[in-house]
Amino acid sequence: MTSILHKIEIERSPEEVFKALSDPASLTCWWTQAQADNPDQKIAFRFGPEGDHIVRMQVDEQLPDKKVVWQCIEGPWAETGNFVFDLEPIDCGTALRFAHHGWPAADDFFMHCNSKWGFFLVVSLKSYLETGTGQPHPADPAI
Amino acid sequence: MTSILHKIEIERSPEEVFKALSDPASLTCWWTQAQADNPDQKIAFRFGPEGDHIVRMQVDEQLPDKKVVWQCIEGPWAETGNFVFDLEPIDCGTALRFAHHGWPAADDFFMHCNSKWGFFLVVSLKSYLETGTGQPHPADPAI
Repeated sequence: MTSILHKIEIERSPEEVFKALSDPASLTCWWTQAQADNPDQKIAFRFGPEGDHIVRMQVDEQLPDKKVVWQCIEGPWAETGNFVFDLEPIDCGTALRFAHHGWPAADDFFMHCNSKWGFFLVVSLKSYLETGTGQPHPADPAI
Repeated sequence: MTSILHKIEIERSPEEVFKALSDPASLTCWWTQAQADNPDQKIAFRFGPEGDHIVRMQVDEQLPDKKVVWQCIEGPWAETGNFVFDLEPIDCGTALRFAHHGWPAADDFFMHCNSKWGFFLVVSLKSYLETGTGQPHPADPAI
């Protein structure tokens, strides 16, 4: 098993970063259109130019200002889908460690998703929190 | 040992992508200030706000339009530094697979470098090749 792993620093408080990772309206501003499926338990994300590819996440854990854990229950990561966001307060704001665990192999889809997470975290999430404007799907680069 | 692995698609020919990965003036346009140290054998890259941190790469392999391999011989990756860029022609242009091998552990520095490579490949290199404008260091996001 292998994992996608990222670490970034964001000049905003853990409270603000946590909101961007847990509130569907905020997730929509930096990742992709998100809707609570069943409040506090599931979130449905829409992908594709028409928004017709659904990824459904079960929210397994939400520790305010500290941690968010999702299990993918529908979509391309249903077999590989344990997502963990860990927040740590630092002098300039927040260190965010991200892991997408459970990949059986580091294949092309793993590498593609790793590159996409690089974009969504380093550019879209960081910019959304620091400037107010993200670059959510489908405005992400076509790679 | 673990590796940083990315895959992106670029709407440019393998010839153009190869030039961006092998010509110091082009590398300067999307990664960081680069200078041939010893033509065809070594490239010195400058990092830091003043450009005073040197990373020196030995060019181990250059297969025109197909592959570039560097070994880091000076700088923070001197212990972990085997970098491989593989190019594959595809309908829309080029698939680029990138690997930075040799990491003894997936620690914070590994995760930070993985996020940085996501930015430099998905945003800066792709944008440099497709639009003519990259976002090289030190204009990359401070993460």
